[in-house]
Amino acid sequence: MSNKVKIAIDAMGGENSPKKIIDAIEISLKSNKDNFFYLYGKKNILEKEISNRKFLYNFCEIINTEDVILDDESALSGAKKSKNTSMWKTIESIKEKKADISLSAGNTGALLVISRLLLKTIPGITKPALAALWPNQNNMNVVLDLGANIECSEKNLIDFACMGSALFKSLFSNTKPKIALLNVGLEEYKGNEILKRTFSILKENKMKNFDFSGYIEGNHIMDGNIDVIVTDGFTGNIALKTAEGTANFISKNLKNSLSKFSILLSYFSLKKFKDKLDPRKYNGAIFLGLQSPVVKSHGATDSVGFAHSISVCNKIVKADLIKKIESNLITVDA
Amino acid sequence: MSNKVKIAIDAMGGENSPKKIIDAIEISLKSNKDNFFYLYGKKNILEKEISNRKFLYNFCEIINTEDVILDDESALSGAKKSKNTSMWKTIESIKEKKADISLSAGNTGALLVISRLLLKTIPGITKPALAALWPNQNNMNVVLDLGANIECSEKNLIDFACMGSALFKSLFSNTKPKIALLNVGLEEYKGNEILKRTFSILKENKMKNFDFSGYIEGNHIMDGNIDVIVTDGFTGNIALKTAEGTANFISKNLKNSLSKFSILLSYFSLKKFKDKLDPRKYNGAIFLGLQSPVVKSHGATDSVGFAHSISVCNKIVKADLIKKIESNLITVDA
Repeated sequence: MSNKVKIAIDAMGGENSPKKIIDAIEISLKSNKDNFFYLYGKKNILEKEISNRKFLYNFCEIINTEDVILDDESALSGAKKSKNTSMWKTIESIKEKKADISLSAGNTGALLVISRLLLKTIPGITKPALAALWPNQNNMNVVLDLGANIECSEKNLIDFACMGSALFKSLFSNTKPKIALLNVGLEEYKGNEILKRTFSILKENKMKNFDFSGYIEGNHIMDGNIDVIVTDGFTGNIALKTAEGTANFISKNLKNSLSKFSILLSYFSLKKFKDKLDPRKYNGAIFLGLQSPVVKSHGATDSVGFAHSISVCNKIVKADLIKKIESNLITVDA
Repeated sequence: MSNKVKIAIDAMGGENSPKKIIDAIEISLKSNKDNFFYLYGKKNILEKEISNRKFLYNFCEIINTEDVILDDESALSGAKKSKNTSMWKTIESIKEKKADISLSAGNTGALLVISRLLLKTIPGITKPALAALWPNQNNMNVVLDLGANIECSEKNLIDFACMGSALFKSLFSNTKPKIALLNVGLEEYKGNEILKRTFSILKENKMKNFDFSGYIEGNHIMDGNIDVIVTDGFTGNIALKTAEGTANFISKNLKNSLSKFSILLSYFSLKKFKDKLDPRKYNGAIFLGLQSPVVKSHGATDSVGFAHSISVCNKIVKADLIKKIESNLITVDA
């Protein structure tokens, strides 16, 4: 087991858990038997779920936790609930180095608070950030921050660039990623003062670990020319959710417009289209900047989506993301 | 002519102008003969364009202007170019009350600068805002600001709510619109300090002209439950462009996925889908807060899109938007 990637999972968090979690583990084992799972949750429920697929015990251990943080609790009340929630114990297990990485589909706010409470930040980082994978014309890019920090300084944004490029290298390609700052125009004088100062620092300092491509506007996030898009958590959250809303609006209207007959006739081509844009592939935001990685799955995703998050966890540990971030960090006068 | 809506048009601004402008006027006349157009631009080019459709002279007058502001000029250099550009003269004609409203598909930055230079703000408004129409499950909503003001105070956001609700009433329905503030969550404690203060002012003061519905997140902009969505110009610009980028990404992938055969088979249903989401219908941002209305058409739109902007101009003048804004404004301790 020592060579395995050890993933701590909050088995109670998110819709249809723990069933979807156990289903996801089963799905993930079809392509990858490298992982071992520590499942935190109500033992009797989890055991019942595994009872008809006992081979899973070769790949996981159940640790009983009595309490559960609800999805609609406030972040603080969730975090303060007890030290025996499935989420708390999951994060604690990476603090104690029992597991390499932790994964939860539960309450995002509580997950961020508990992670900050239990885990130290990487030396040099003051604000950890939430990064997501975003589909583009080539493959995927990384966008951060998505809501962990409402207000960010130029130092924070530069840290995000370093952490985002380390994540991109861990997940996709170990070459120098191209990074850009999300802004309302491409010209150097556009945007607020913090963006302008960040731009000038990144332009003047030659970066070893990424290439700085200047500003990017919202309509070019998905073009595939930029690998890491950096923004404050307020703007990133609005951008991500607006993109989600637009995609939902279009698919709903497309579905309503197509007759059953034409859906049948276009079945294979529409399936190809849906497969490419399947949001489950992009499931899993990554909380970066802490001494251990914390992955957040979408609460509403299904077992296929959760299995994608498991695969992200596996890649992050194998690529040694935390070390990559440490060696990526730059000190500039910001 | 005195009963006509007099629209001043910058006939040289935007792609394929002035041809698309003249085509658009011809299209608009098919459904509405209420308008009279003052066309500012190079007289010889405009006359050549009208030469084979002389009936248009019943509905327009050409005023020669020698200079043109280019689309890729900086806002300031465009605005300072000369007082004889088609754009400058267009705005001047509403300042002098020769026309009721002005319309341009040219350089947005220069249009905002010239409008601010030549036109006074409505008493009580310190920052005019750029509003756009956004499709939703029911019909359309108004979103503002979209980039005129990078940073906004609570007073500005409250003014935007008043102006946006006056615009909504002018274009769609004279009932009390529902307004909401764009934020990263629904809870009262979410967001930055300015949003929190704006929220508490709008919550505590009973508004005569609109109902305050609290916060809205990016993924619900298109649900159709809110009529006016208020945000600062930085966030609004990112949201609008991200939605545009997402829509383009999806349509491109849909097109690539469908075979020619299935496009043929689904022709009518796909046409219905495209018609509903046709961005030309939502063409036309409106610069609100000045003593005369200025409408900005998308530079890349075609004659059908520009004709939609003409129809927006007609509705705004008939509904007496400026008076509606004046009577909508509220004074609160912000």
